[in-house]
Amino acid sequence: MPDNYDFGLVGLGVMGRNFILNVADNGFTAFGNDLDQEKVNTLIEEGGDTARVNAATDVATFVKALISPRKIMLLVPAGEIVDKVIENLLPHLDEGDIIIDGGNSFYTDTDRREAFLKDKGINFFGAGVSGGAEGARRGPSIMPGGSREAYQHVKPIFEAVAAKYQGEPCVAYLGPKSAGNYVKMVHNGIEYGLMQLTSEIYDLLKKSAGLTNEELQVTYNTWNNGRLQSFLVEITSKIFGKQDDLGEGYLVDKILDKAKQKGTGKWTSQNAMDLGIPVPTIDIAVSMRQISALKDERIKADAMYDRPIPKEVDKDSFIEKAEQALYFAFIMAYAQGMHQLADASEEYGYELELGKIAKIWRAGCIIRAALLADITQAYQENKSLENLLLAPSFKNKIQETVGAARELVAYGAVNGIPLPGLSNALTYFDSYTSERLPLNLIQAQRDFFGSHTYERLDEEGVFHTEWE
Amino acid sequence: MPDNYDFGLVGLGVMGRNFILNVADNGFTAFGNDLDQEKVNTLIEEGGDTARVNAATDVATFVKALISPRKIMLLVPAGEIVDKVIENLLPHLDEGDIIIDGGNSFYTDTDRREAFLKDKGINFFGAGVSGGAEGARRGPSIMPGGSREAYQHVKPIFEAVAAKYQGEPCVAYLGPKSAGNYVKMVHNGIEYGLMQLTSEIYDLLKKSAGLTNEELQVTYNTWNNGRLQSFLVEITSKIFGKQDDLGEGYLVDKILDKAKQKGTGKWTSQNAMDLGIPVPTIDIAVSMRQISALKDERIKADAMYDRPIPKEVDKDSFIEKAEQALYFAFIMAYAQGMHQLADASEEYGYELELGKIAKIWRAGCIIRAALLADITQAYQENKSLENLLLAPSFKNKIQETVGAARELVAYGAVNGIPLPGLSNALTYFDSYTSERLPLNLIQAQRDFFGSHTYERLDEEGVFHTEWE
Repeated sequence: MPDNYDFGLVGLGVMGRNFILNVADNGFTAFGNDLDQEKVNTLIEEGGDTARVNAATDVATFVKALISPRKIMLLVPAGEIVDKVIENLLPHLDEGDIIIDGGNSFYTDTDRREAFLKDKGINFFGAGVSGGAEGARRGPSIMPGGSREAYQHVKPIFEAVAAKYQGEPCVAYLGPKSAGNYVKMVHNGIEYGLMQLTSEIYDLLKKSAGLTNEELQVTYNTWNNGRLQSFLVEITSKIFGKQDDLGEGYLVDKILDKAKQKGTGKWTSQNAMDLGIPVPTIDIAVSMRQISALKDERIKADAMYDRPIPKEVDKDSFIEKAEQALYFAFIMAYAQGMHQLADASEEYGYELELGKIAKIWRAGCIIRAALLADITQAYQENKSLENLLLAPSFKNKIQETVGAARELVAYGAVNGIPLPGLSNALTYFDSYTSERLPLNLIQAQRDFFGSHTYERLDEEGVFHTEWE
Repeated sequence: MPDNYDFGLVGLGVMGRNFILNVADNGFTAFGNDLDQEKVNTLIEEGGDTARVNAATDVATFVKALISPRKIMLLVPAGEIVDKVIENLLPHLDEGDIIIDGGNSFYTDTDRREAFLKDKGINFFGAGVSGGAEGARRGPSIMPGGSREAYQHVKPIFEAVAAKYQGEPCVAYLGPKSAGNYVKMVHNGIEYGLMQLTSEIYDLLKKSAGLTNEELQVTYNTWNNGRLQSFLVEITSKIFGKQDDLGEGYLVDKILDKAKQKGTGKWTSQNAMDLGIPVPTIDIAVSMRQISALKDERIKADAMYDRPIPKEVDKDSFIEKAEQALYFAFIMAYAQGMHQLADASEEYGYELELGKIAKIWRAGCIIRAALLADITQAYQENKSLENLLLAPSFKNKIQETVGAARELVAYGAVNGIPLPGLSNALTYFDSYTSERLPLNLIQAQRDFFGSHTYERLDEEGVFHTEWE
């Protein structure tokens, strides 16, 4: 067996296997490792030629097969398994070797591992990979963070396997330490927001305008051919068209309405709160998955309370407004995520370039969308843009669509159709664009009961009042 | 100096000084400790009689002055200072002595300290204290958690100093470990929600119905004499009546609209996300404080975007609807907090009785409100009530007021007045009372791009579909 494979990968689940085959398709040789002999066999079989794609269950064999500096990617579940794999690899590695964690590891875990491995002369990368199984096979978006120098060794392979947007690879060195995992975390937070929005607009169109699955399929497909073009809108259309294999009718109607989560959306919200950056569209998407899980309580509550009967609407004009509102809310979700990245970059020293991030999200990843080309441009025009809402190129996009968001939020409120993501997108917009908010009252309350002091509009300083 | 004081207290800021004077008013002798000689002097002076109230900067003197088992309360800022104070006390303490942390410590810190001190034979209590400076002086609500046995030594003092609701003291043993701090944290989360709601309704009444500060004062005062009776509504009324000392006009209009926070609201939201309990009214209150802090960005954004001109409304009927909507949203905020407590009790083994918690919140604390008597009753009627929305006694209260919430959310959306707390209260209600939510689509999307599988409505099991 030749010991000259270009790339190693630990964890031969569907993502890992697909990633290796992608590497091999692009002219690199790759060697896989997994404890499971069956997975090893499957990869070897699918690879077709062991000089190009090989695999072993034994770690020593695996490491020995790679050329120096070794480039070893892990595609294993986030958590303790990552530490375990690193521990198993370590005795076999040499100084200068590179480990790349391609999973959704929490950013502080990545920082800890990077520091631990640096001491041993090993370069550690946290590299978020988005695109699902299909993306891993045909071209994902890759978000690597770590040592800039070491990245040079990984770069040719990543640029070859990554998705391409008009010829440009959807991968770039993002920054030091856990920058890559952090960016991927926020990517997923935005993803939560977009998914919640597509799902509540589906609910709205169904309950108000009575759209059938066929009509929903057509509607989302039409949208996907316009400014809403995006992976999530595209697959949503396809989902509505899918017949149930196990019975009559459409599959979407048979699926239990309890949404699961793996934590990255929650982490995004929790960390945004620590940073002090508002991301209410992402927060509510997390909350909605949680409410969805409380199915038994929802059934009891539904039986207790009356609900308005949705007022009839004109189908065509309602669909038009839904498109505008969804576009508006998508912008708000991206704006919140980008805002968080800007702040995290300052706080954690990531030196992120937001334009570069938007750029590598234009293809390959789950949140890819036509909008990301516009976002890329907005940040290229102004690298220190504080918020997408402040970009001149976004002003009209927002101004032209906010009216529909207003109308639909009002419709949902009056007619008992919950539009939590859209409402939060709208109140975010209305609050962010308010020079004055009523939180002067909150400062007065805090000073009243807790002597927490307040500032004034007309004078510098810190003030306290005896209110009674 | 006699060494027979009943109660010791470290940290003689305004809260600590007031708490000691309250203890002394109730017939107990108390000894204070603070590094600051001036604060020591102030207390001694205010106490009037050193046989009743005394204080010292020296820790040894302080500890020696207390009867066994010593009951030493800390009213110092949460964080490292608590550990420091404990460290300084330790060499002087005997087995069986009791330390009570009365600050807003994070619950895991309390668990750590409790375990550390248990090893040394010292009983440690986390006891949330709410009521501000005035409450500390005249009767706060106290939320102690720790050893049930040791609580017997503290109980007579706490029951004497606590606020009374129809003669019943607003304090009770809540549960083991950090139960007390946790309950106080969620209390503060609810407080964030109520404050946000009072502030946005103020904004709405001002911008839509053009209410002046005088009218707002009268309105909130009228509300405070009805079912909305609560400390926060009461002080809000008083705030609107306060003239500016430094200039013409009302003080509230001069206060900068950037709200600060000390973290307990944020912790509530972050922890609710870990538990999987939706608290969107609290989440958005945290977000709004963060948006308020971005004043410079808000000024820029405000200048960029048009805003609708609020449609004229009938003042009286609008005020009536605002009362109903605020009542509805208050219920949702309490419901979310109580829901979180129920789940945390399971998760952390707190053995909480929600009826008991509502009971000790009826007076003394910042979120005290007429509603808490109803909430107490609801949990007394059903100890295992999953959510306040499922209480028969709340059904009508909610059903009768949700219509106004619908109307105002719609008004705010269309007219560009952000009502984020009210919207989230409404979408929470509409989602929680929906047997079916559109999150079946989210499960379909997750299975489409990530093979995350889904469940079905009509069949047990876990399913995966090849969607394309």
